[in-house]
Amino acid sequence: MIYDPSTTQLLTFHDKLPAFLDGTDTPRAYLERCLETINAREPDVKAFVTMTIDRARQAADEATERYRHGNPLSPLDGMPIAIKDVFETEDMPMQLGSPLFEGYETGWDAASVYFLRHGGAVVVGKTVTTEFAFGDPGPTRNPWDTNRTPGGSSSGSGAAVGAAMVPAATGTQVRGSVLRPACYCGAWALKPSHGAINTRGGFPSPPSVGHLGILAGSLADAWISGYWLSRNAGGDAGHPSLKGEAILPKARKPARVARTESAGWLETPEETRAIFDNMTRKLDGRGVEVVGRQDDPELEAYEQDLIKLREIMEVTLAYEGRWPLMMYADRNPEKLGERVLNRALSSADITPEQYEETLIWSAEAKVRHEALSRKYDALITLNATGPAPEGMPVGNAVYGEHSSQLGVPALNAPLLVQEGMPLGIQLIGFYRRDYDLVAIAHWLIHAILRDED
Amino acid sequence: MIYDPSTTQLLTFHDKLPAFLDGTDTPRAYLERCLETINAREPDVKAFVTMTIDRARQAADEATERYRHGNPLSPLDGMPIAIKDVFETEDMPMQLGSPLFEGYETGWDAASVYFLRHGGAVVVGKTVTTEFAFGDPGPTRNPWDTNRTPGGSSSGSGAAVGAAMVPAATGTQVRGSVLRPACYCGAWALKPSHGAINTRGGFPSPPSVGHLGILAGSLADAWISGYWLSRNAGGDAGHPSLKGEAILPKARKPARVARTESAGWLETPEETRAIFDNMTRKLDGRGVEVVGRQDDPELEAYEQDLIKLREIMEVTLAYEGRWPLMMYADRNPEKLGERVLNRALSSADITPEQYEETLIWSAEAKVRHEALSRKYDALITLNATGPAPEGMPVGNAVYGEHSSQLGVPALNAPLLVQEGMPLGIQLIGFYRRDYDLVAIAHWLIHAILRDED
Repeated sequence: MIYDPSTTQLLTFHDKLPAFLDGTDTPRAYLERCLETINAREPDVKAFVTMTIDRARQAADEATERYRHGNPLSPLDGMPIAIKDVFETEDMPMQLGSPLFEGYETGWDAASVYFLRHGGAVVVGKTVTTEFAFGDPGPTRNPWDTNRTPGGSSSGSGAAVGAAMVPAATGTQVRGSVLRPACYCGAWALKPSHGAINTRGGFPSPPSVGHLGILAGSLADAWISGYWLSRNAGGDAGHPSLKGEAILPKARKPARVARTESAGWLETPEETRAIFDNMTRKLDGRGVEVVGRQDDPELEAYEQDLIKLREIMEVTLAYEGRWPLMMYADRNPEKLGERVLNRALSSADITPEQYEETLIWSAEAKVRHEALSRKYDALITLNATGPAPEGMPVGNAVYGEHSSQLGVPALNAPLLVQEGMPLGIQLIGFYRRDYDLVAIAHWLIHAILRDED
Repeated sequence: MIYDPSTTQLLTFHDKLPAFLDGTDTPRAYLERCLETINAREPDVKAFVTMTIDRARQAADEATERYRHGNPLSPLDGMPIAIKDVFETEDMPMQLGSPLFEGYETGWDAASVYFLRHGGAVVVGKTVTTEFAFGDPGPTRNPWDTNRTPGGSSSGSGAAVGAAMVPAATGTQVRGSVLRPACYCGAWALKPSHGAINTRGGFPSPPSVGHLGILAGSLADAWISGYWLSRNAGGDAGHPSLKGEAILPKARKPARVARTESAGWLETPEETRAIFDNMTRKLDGRGVEVVGRQDDPELEAYEQDLIKLREIMEVTLAYEGRWPLMMYADRNPEKLGERVLNRALSSADITPEQYEETLIWSAEAKVRHEALSRKYDALITLNATGPAPEGMPVGNAVYGEHSSQLGVPALNAPLLVQEGMPLGIQLIGFYRRDYDLVAIAHWLIHAILRDED
């Protein structure tokens, strides 16, 4: 299959509501179309660990009834959604991509899952994750070329959306795990400001840099789902919900964007660089000032932060992983992959003082990031060093660390193509200004695909 | 039994290490003495939900071997400890004081439990909690008078330490749930600065105001245990560990303390007020300046904060309880107590904007609290409106909200007595200066019990 951002059409949901209300379409019929695609593609793509089709059909029928009476529960009522298998669901095991959790059931829904159901969303199944969302990869393949990786750790969520099996899926990110699979699979994705969506009820990912994000077939569905969850499940404790409106913001043309390289640019081959540079020239041609490190000393200093940030993140991930990883490694080392075992071991050596230094550094780096908002409407970069590779388990995480460590919103805009494969633009915004960032992404669609504002 | 702070001797552990090392005592023998007391008192006191005596004996034997070879794992090696039944343990169910969780097992240790075992501590059993740590009370009775409440929600932990069954126990507090049971049962307790001890692996209490604290038979064991856990299990993600030394700080006489009333003083009967006032006069007589709201306009303004704080906490608890309480109430309302059901219902009505207002208010109130550190070494007040009452399920939480909502360290010093029952002094400190607060509490022992500095 050849990816073409100007013609490829993944599933959308928000635009079906009028048809649900006037009866020309129904959530049940929508679900059945999803299930047809799943039947056709899943044997090759392997996006799902577990499915819950009977319950999904029942939920879709209930949503159909509500639309028939003109009373949907929420903008997500009837929306088929897939859940990354790092969250608990009352009706399926939480297996975390680990043999240690084979068949593990808690009997409860995670906060995000409970509130999705509460809003009428139709949970279709659990999607493949790498081991504990950072270790050994699962069996999932890229829907655009099954010889390639779908990315990770939200491998199944990226593939399920990219294969048009579902209009949306949840993911988690501490190191590009939402944005990179979206980038490789041609999906839109929003990793919101840190804490904006309740992550409780599942595997305790390093919480100070862990985010729940949404992968979707359209920017509108990514925003609508993320916003609704943030307002209803709430954020993580101590964090406010997203600001903005419940619908996709109008396209907003940025005046000036910062082109950031981070550690990723050095690892990005010439061909991919050329595609990205061509895109920024296009923005420039539409009157958007694209400023790079060579043009602004503040940006050059910020680029140095992004190099230092890599060590900071290593310490953060290891220290916050002490529990439960040391416990798993003590008890069942034979059931852990090498990467997980290594992190468990390295976590034991980090001192509280080293961790405290990372907290201080991060707090200061966040201030320097926020300061960029005085000059720039957003930061623009890639989401991966190229299209999904063959041979590498889940691809290179280098572009994904930045926004997670700093807790700022970031998204994947699947608007580029290389070798007939999707290549995503990363837009990075400012804390709690997720809605503004989505407005700029909206404009990007016009600018890049249609050469218009 | 008559409580007398100058003669009552609960269990201590830190002072036994020399005897363990020279072989005149052993952790196994220490444990057996604990088990004798448990056998004698538990039928009346009912502190425990579950015990794990075989494994405790095995762990105590292993610790005995390590001391024999001069290689204890930590200052807690061999220390019998009881775990509040809101945390997971691999060998016992986590029942949360709720019929909904009867026999619920996860197979894993909470972070605090895992690291306690990692340091060689001997987990003896799980202690009674009120339903989800705020609802219906359990069967536990006050060890000093079994017609009275032990307090809550850490009812069993307070009673187990107060009955000298164990030298230490873990508790959790969002509304006085560590300090009040300690106060009623005559135990020392430290509720550290917010986030200082990892709370993961158990019931998701409202996290932005939830704390893991230590109840112990001595100030030294409370500090040593809390500090060790904070340095090894780490704090909650994004929070640094406690500062200070691994041993009890030297007594430090404060120059000036702020006497705060909060909403509690109005609900405190004359007899209890007189005991407290008598104590502060004693401090004054030793040259400590005790300043009240009438002496300092800044303190008067702060007292107004403490009244407002009550509403703020209501919103915080309800909003952060949306999940999982709404889920429990949807599925199994018949298994929930009235208080839990009411909070689940009220949580549904709170808007993200209301919650955000509480975050802003709390951040500002924390600054006003910190500003008091320029004038005062600590704040001093009561931990309850009187000794443990009869008839009230777990007593009055009014004095406990203050330090939890503001995230500042607080402790119970069981140095007063009324009606032959323990009455605790509350010392409240400044964020991350837990060690300084413990030093002042150490001095308080000398000043109040021995009339010396």
